[in-house]
Amino acid sequence: MTLNDINSPADLKKLSVGELQPVADELRSYIINTLSTHPGHLASSLGTVELTVALHYVFNTPDDKLIWDVGHQAYGHKILTGRRDAFQTIRTYGGISGFPKRSESPYDAFGTGHSSTSISAALGMAIASKLQGNTQRKHIAVIGDGSLTGGEAFEALNNVGTSKSNIIVILNDNGISIDKAVGGLNGYLLKITSSPRYNKLKEQVWQKLDNRESSKSFFRRLTSVAKAIALGSNNLFESLGIRYFGPVDGHNIEQLVNTLQRLKDINGPTLLHVVTRKGRGLRQAEQNPIAYHAPGFFDAETGRQIQAPSSGAQPLKYQEVFGRTIIELAEQNPAIVGITPAMATGCSLNLMMDCMPHRVFDVGISEQHAVTFAAGLAAQGMVPFCNIYSSFAQRAYDQIIHDVALQGLPVVLCLDRAGLVGDDGPTHHGVFDLAALRPVPGITICAPSNEHELRNMMYTAQLPGHGPFVIRYPRGASVNADWQNPMVELEIGKGHRVKEGSDVAFLALGHSVNDALAAAADLQRDNISAAVYDMRFLKPLDTGLLDTIAQQGYRRIITVEDGVQLGGFGESVMEYFAEHHPEQISLTRILAIPDSFITHGSVAQLKSDCHIDKQALISAAHES
Amino acid sequence: MTLNDINSPADLKKLSVGELQPVADELRSYIINTLSTHPGHLASSLGTVELTVALHYVFNTPDDKLIWDVGHQAYGHKILTGRRDAFQTIRTYGGISGFPKRSESPYDAFGTGHSSTSISAALGMAIASKLQGNTQRKHIAVIGDGSLTGGEAFEALNNVGTSKSNIIVILNDNGISIDKAVGGLNGYLLKITSSPRYNKLKEQVWQKLDNRESSKSFFRRLTSVAKAIALGSNNLFESLGIRYFGPVDGHNIEQLVNTLQRLKDINGPTLLHVVTRKGRGLRQAEQNPIAYHAPGFFDAETGRQIQAPSSGAQPLKYQEVFGRTIIELAEQNPAIVGITPAMATGCSLNLMMDCMPHRVFDVGISEQHAVTFAAGLAAQGMVPFCNIYSSFAQRAYDQIIHDVALQGLPVVLCLDRAGLVGDDGPTHHGVFDLAALRPVPGITICAPSNEHELRNMMYTAQLPGHGPFVIRYPRGASVNADWQNPMVELEIGKGHRVKEGSDVAFLALGHSVNDALAAAADLQRDNISAAVYDMRFLKPLDTGLLDTIAQQGYRRIITVEDGVQLGGFGESVMEYFAEHHPEQISLTRILAIPDSFITHGSVAQLKSDCHIDKQALISAAHES
Repeated sequence: MTLNDINSPADLKKLSVGELQPVADELRSYIINTLSTHPGHLASSLGTVELTVALHYVFNTPDDKLIWDVGHQAYGHKILTGRRDAFQTIRTYGGISGFPKRSESPYDAFGTGHSSTSISAALGMAIASKLQGNTQRKHIAVIGDGSLTGGEAFEALNNVGTSKSNIIVILNDNGISIDKAVGGLNGYLLKITSSPRYNKLKEQVWQKLDNRESSKSFFRRLTSVAKAIALGSNNLFESLGIRYFGPVDGHNIEQLVNTLQRLKDINGPTLLHVVTRKGRGLRQAEQNPIAYHAPGFFDAETGRQIQAPSSGAQPLKYQEVFGRTIIELAEQNPAIVGITPAMATGCSLNLMMDCMPHRVFDVGISEQHAVTFAAGLAAQGMVPFCNIYSSFAQRAYDQIIHDVALQGLPVVLCLDRAGLVGDDGPTHHGVFDLAALRPVPGITICAPSNEHELRNMMYTAQLPGHGPFVIRYPRGASVNADWQNPMVELEIGKGHRVKEGSDVAFLALGHSVNDALAAAADLQRDNISAAVYDMRFLKPLDTGLLDTIAQQGYRRIITVEDGVQLGGFGESVMEYFAEHHPEQISLTRILAIPDSFITHGSVAQLKSDCHIDKQALISAAHES
Repeated sequence: MTLNDINSPADLKKLSVGELQPVADELRSYIINTLSTHPGHLASSLGTVELTVALHYVFNTPDDKLIWDVGHQAYGHKILTGRRDAFQTIRTYGGISGFPKRSESPYDAFGTGHSSTSISAALGMAIASKLQGNTQRKHIAVIGDGSLTGGEAFEALNNVGTSKSNIIVILNDNGISIDKAVGGLNGYLLKITSSPRYNKLKEQVWQKLDNRESSKSFFRRLTSVAKAIALGSNNLFESLGIRYFGPVDGHNIEQLVNTLQRLKDINGPTLLHVVTRKGRGLRQAEQNPIAYHAPGFFDAETGRQIQAPSSGAQPLKYQEVFGRTIIELAEQNPAIVGITPAMATGCSLNLMMDCMPHRVFDVGISEQHAVTFAAGLAAQGMVPFCNIYSSFAQRAYDQIIHDVALQGLPVVLCLDRAGLVGDDGPTHHGVFDLAALRPVPGITICAPSNEHELRNMMYTAQLPGHGPFVIRYPRGASVNADWQNPMVELEIGKGHRVKEGSDVAFLALGHSVNDALAAAADLQRDNISAAVYDMRFLKPLDTGLLDTIAQQGYRRIITVEDGVQLGGFGESVMEYFAEHHPEQISLTRILAIPDSFITHGSVAQLKSDCHIDKQALISAAHES
């Protein structure tokens, strides 16, 4: 039987344990080959190939509930559960999602784009099963060591321990999340994994098991004796009331199957510590799992990454401009520090880490801590630039309000990947930030229209006296090839006109200014003269500029933003007009990202699907 | 020297260790006497009296940074740091805050109204000190065992362990947060505290110390030997790289002072486990710490709680209506379960716990877990009512979006203490919920104007097919004495007129409907005929009703809501009018809670200070 014959886990179960590794090998090759030409999350899913096969072999999915934390480890799971051919469409428009998705398959028990949610969800399902009288169903959460640092995972473990429910936590320990794993927990896991005394005892247990001399109780007794002797009875997880097993080799499929079969028979909460290698099976990915977390195009044979051909000087990504500019600022201002919750490479703070390691803090996946930690630094006179992906910053909404805003502390919150993020889809779009933060008192909120603006905003934010400052900018390329303008202070709450025009006016915030400029250029050909205003600040809103705009006699005013409409920039303009220039109301149109796009767009490859691309702007300007 | 002579910690330091207990006793009496007539958080602060005295005696506050997690344990701290007389004004209008507040005193190093933030903030300050070249300063976070379950505290501990910074975490273990502490962590702490083997060894250590035979290294060696032998080397905190000391008796002031003096000399992160008794020194409070968490008025001598005199049948609190109604619904619908993050008594889920203990889950302080756990239950066919205080639900903003809304799961999120909460002040006002949740796709958001409406909304929410449902309601008394109406299904997104009128119209959401009705009655005397509309739903907005209202020829339309203006209910009405009835725009006024009230109102006792009381409504109606 080959991978082509496996259309569901039922087909897998027809094999003997000894026949599983070839399937795993084929699965791994299929992932590598497909992703080499269909970019996606590579290294995580390579690390879980054997685990995926073993889980579907042992458990009765989808009746048993299998939840993959931060779903990018779940590609193998998708392929084995009826989506082998559809896998070619992963993360493309109309194709399957890069994360587990309930609406996509009954095998996807819970949607997991953000990290550290799997144990909570599994516990909810386990309690539901218990209340419904089903004592047989198993509920399995597979969580990486990097995701375990997220506070919600600990909240869940604390509840799992006393729940007496049928929940198995699989700790997929690869010593790495997206960047290198950080913090005390990582050291702890490493210590267990590398303890010769414990592992020798464990080895003896396994030998007994392999000789099939063992009963379930013997297995229990021996593992607990081994743990007690070598690690002390107060293993971190056992402290919380969860029975700990492992570590086991996550690439030894027979051992995995044997262990999981035994765990299946144990009632109550258990945790199995599985050691895997991120990128397993592709040399470059094993050696450089950060670069191969999502490597883009690569050669399936050699593993070599393939760069898109470059024609002359290209604009840097906003991320890289941020990463280089914070260094420039930090060289001048010794109070500046950088903070990232596990996204150092993604947000380019790795550049500052290289040259100022003591002034950058990768706090692991822990957005809540990141923000309060920044507030603590600010309370003592530092100027922390706390860089969080916009959609992940939703995790720190309370801390932004309670610790930063209400105390007026000068934290510079840089929301990366704001707006539409592309192929990661709905869970990752950074579309709520403007609306959610606008009502919070005492915060300045701005969005740069290009990398020069980003630099000026960063420069302005770190000057004394500004209080909490939010700068939100998108993923990807900025605008100009010459990124390094001399930085100047921007006047807080002041926008400006970037293109004159007399018929219609585009009022844009952030990178959308470029869509407005492109639309204005096209409209010129239709003899429509369009002005473009870069509003720069959502809060405070430039009401003086709005007064001026209201007096120009435009026949149409169009607001443009890459965020949700409700409560966003356009509504704030509308609100001001309503009070001060009611005659403008009927002329004004809001272009923002519609709800349907956020909930139903399974993949955001085509920006034209949303309402804020150039064509949508042109149509709005033509509207009479 | 008596308490009256202590105007700052410097005065305390003039005393010998033996003279401290009388001061502590006096401090405790002063707290009891004051709070008997000035209601506040009693039991927590009684438990920390000796700890407070010892901390200010040993450490060099305010240069050393002392952060009290969930500040309601900090009353003694306020009294000893220059606010002895001002303590009489605690939690009153113009008086001092019930929580530490940076703007109130240099001794209040960080504002802490919400739980589990102290370690993150202390770590930020510790890193700041290190970067600023100050290696002497100590940074102390005092955190209760109940707050330690909050995920942010774990995120912080994970970072503390590897930080090598001068941070001392004091674990104030009283086995209780506000309700009884829950989860595996609590069991773990109890196990340490009650281990005879460990405590005997520890006793020997202390004897050595008392005999002054010990050196610092001896102290270290002995405690670590004791821990290793009795608890194993993998103490939960030591697993994370934090040196663990204790448990010590939190009411033995000499032992506390000795221990803290030694900890002060140890570099790097340490954790001291202090066992205290919540309510210590007032018999009733010790015996019933939940009731005496914030007991209201009581007799300082006997401890007996004093109820306000009642005249006839009073309306129940919204909380009690919720608590009784969920039982009524759960008796009919076996899929219903209740979830509370540590607020069972506050939200009245304790009533359901008494009669259906297996269907209520107190998950401890863990709002993120609470919401994803609810989503997991809903994914398996249950109907979870997840009750969270509005301002604490800010902690779960991402989970509401990512786990509930994007998956369309039928979680009923009940946001208690929405709107202004009164004496707890800015950190606790539930004013952001409407604006923050409005842009989230696929959620129904409603607010009841009285207890009958609350019951109907709860009934409607649990019917099949409605998806995510948010019901937000205020703290305190509802409206009618006969609360138990027969429940009926409400049409989603439909409001209704509750009072006719021809001159002006109040469009109110939630309990504000009652302010509108009261204002309308008063306006009648001025010959102004005011209609009142109970809009019921923020989302979907009743646009049909808005169309009707727009056609009535009111000379003024006034929206009323107990939330922030930006992005809230009034703006959503304005937005609809702008598109469909622009002629109404200039007639429409929004009454909502202004920013200044949220940030600067140190205490919210006087509702008249905000813009949504009856008088404000009357003024708006008179405006020409």
